[in-house]
Amino acid sequence: MINSPICGLLGIEHPIIQGGMAWVSDGTLAAAVSNGGGLGIISAMSADAGYLSRQVARARSLTDRPFGVNVMLMSPYAGEVARTVADMGVSVVTTGAGNPSKYMKMWIDSGVAVIPVVASVALARMMERSGASAVIAEGGESGGHVGDTSTLVLVPQVCDAVGIPVIAAGGIADGRGFAAVRALGACGVQIGTRFLVADECSIHDNYKDKIIKASDIATVVTGRRLGHAVRSLKTPFSRAYLKAEYDSALPDEDLEKLGVGALRLAAVEGDAEHGCFLAGQVAGMVKKRQRAADIISEIMAEAEVVIKGASEWAV
Amino acid sequence: MINSPICGLLGIEHPIIQGGMAWVSDGTLAAAVSNGGGLGIISAMSADAGYLSRQVARARSLTDRPFGVNVMLMSPYAGEVARTVADMGVSVVTTGAGNPSKYMKMWIDSGVAVIPVVASVALARMMERSGASAVIAEGGESGGHVGDTSTLVLVPQVCDAVGIPVIAAGGIADGRGFAAVRALGACGVQIGTRFLVADECSIHDNYKDKIIKASDIATVVTGRRLGHAVRSLKTPFSRAYLKAEYDSALPDEDLEKLGVGALRLAAVEGDAEHGCFLAGQVAGMVKKRQRAADIISEIMAEAEVVIKGASEWAV
Repeated sequence: MINSPICGLLGIEHPIIQGGMAWVSDGTLAAAVSNGGGLGIISAMSADAGYLSRQVARARSLTDRPFGVNVMLMSPYAGEVARTVADMGVSVVTTGAGNPSKYMKMWIDSGVAVIPVVASVALARMMERSGASAVIAEGGESGGHVGDTSTLVLVPQVCDAVGIPVIAAGGIADGRGFAAVRALGACGVQIGTRFLVADECSIHDNYKDKIIKASDIATVVTGRRLGHAVRSLKTPFSRAYLKAEYDSALPDEDLEKLGVGALRLAAVEGDAEHGCFLAGQVAGMVKKRQRAADIISEIMAEAEVVIKGASEWAV
Repeated sequence: MINSPICGLLGIEHPIIQGGMAWVSDGTLAAAVSNGGGLGIISAMSADAGYLSRQVARARSLTDRPFGVNVMLMSPYAGEVARTVADMGVSVVTTGAGNPSKYMKMWIDSGVAVIPVVASVALARMMERSGASAVIAEGGESGGHVGDTSTLVLVPQVCDAVGIPVIAAGGIADGRGFAAVRALGACGVQIGTRFLVADECSIHDNYKDKIIKASDIATVVTGRRLGHAVRSLKTPFSRAYLKAEYDSALPDEDLEKLGVGALRLAAVEGDAEHGCFLAGQVAGMVKKRQRAADIISEIMAEAEVVIKGASEWAV
């Protein structure tokens, strides 16, 4: 067993939090991760409060263990979804793609532990001051919305800057990565990409196949021109989008429109041509489909071996 | 003391290799690093063989310990410089910005240990087949010419792919980073950015000040449009260059010309307006000027503390 302050904080067995991924992290996957001893997360994505309520009910029908909700702050429904999290007594909320300050008081007053995802030291500091229970320091190698600074560089600087627990995200898929971020000062990890291929994950088979086949250089970042960078697999869609970004004759509004619906096409339809398959760089390390619980136990077992072996590095 | 196979291979005390940085890594800095127990590296940059000969002579006048040369493969003088490395009996060569296959036989026949810098699993495999003694797996958070894949993701995949020793580069500036990449399977580190502020480093004071003041989000990658991405500090130069990259009316040749001379302006003149200050993301973790030997001993001491403490993570 690996000791971590976030296990007690969140009421979980292993310090592994599942990433909140749009069109991926539903109540079924979240329950499977929580039943495996980690913290499952339902993504509220850009859907309304009704969707979230149904997913929370679904997860509660499948597990008695704690799970959380991820609120994507750029969602047009962020406000009503934030209220639903508080009203339904969800135990933990993680936030992505922005600054959740305006919802923090409501959540904390309702007893929800708030764990924002941060991509910079400045936001980590601000979140600590606003009452966050912990922060997830997410490196730019992760999938979906990304910052620039890598996990290896970001995590120690966030650990130096705040007194609350720091969870590392981005680039972690096995026990080696877990042990590495522990050396940097993190007390747990958030993992997204490896759970894409969990048996309990409902995405299209084509998506899972693409993750399993991905190499070490299989992803690309698009959206930098518009100021919201997103990492996905290299596909016809991402190549066309990247080319359009360098076409300065194309207005920003038209560029924006190119991405509409592409996440759903990937996750639901498995559309290899027009889908946007979000994935972290670590897709290259994901080699097999497994039950969510087996993913968790395999990572923890490997981490223990690496950590126990560390004493032999120094002689 | 931390045990590592590359110490015996290279005849060094500590498994720290200094990065080969154009306009930075001269004979004086290389000798200082080697005298501190690491492996100093002279950058042949884009200069001719005469420059390299003088720097090798300079280093030999300052140290009896082994040091190496970095050959930047995009240099117009790469061929003559490669020959000089073999002729002068330099013990180690590292290579950057490309595939050194065509020089490998000459170097190996001359007894030079070859350690290519690689940014992908495919190149690492090719280098092992060509006779490399080790590889430096360099993540995209490093400074200067960069690939995409981060150190945390690249290093374990390169370790899985090759049987020769793997040295990690990119994002490492302290003992925590050292311990982290050991957990990933690396047997040593290459460090560039922290040596920029070594007392024995001859760059302009303005450059050193910028590194010391850098935050966690202080760097940017330019050059992606032309296919050779370069990481540097955010400055008026890099902002203007990035803007020009998105101007599709600007021909590639004109974009290329914008960068000419900018490295020299930064390193030699300290020109805050027109200089290109190459730096890794880890600049945000570099907080003080020190002797090169003190940088090395501080990193190793901190790494030992982190590694010895690792056994307490598992309970």
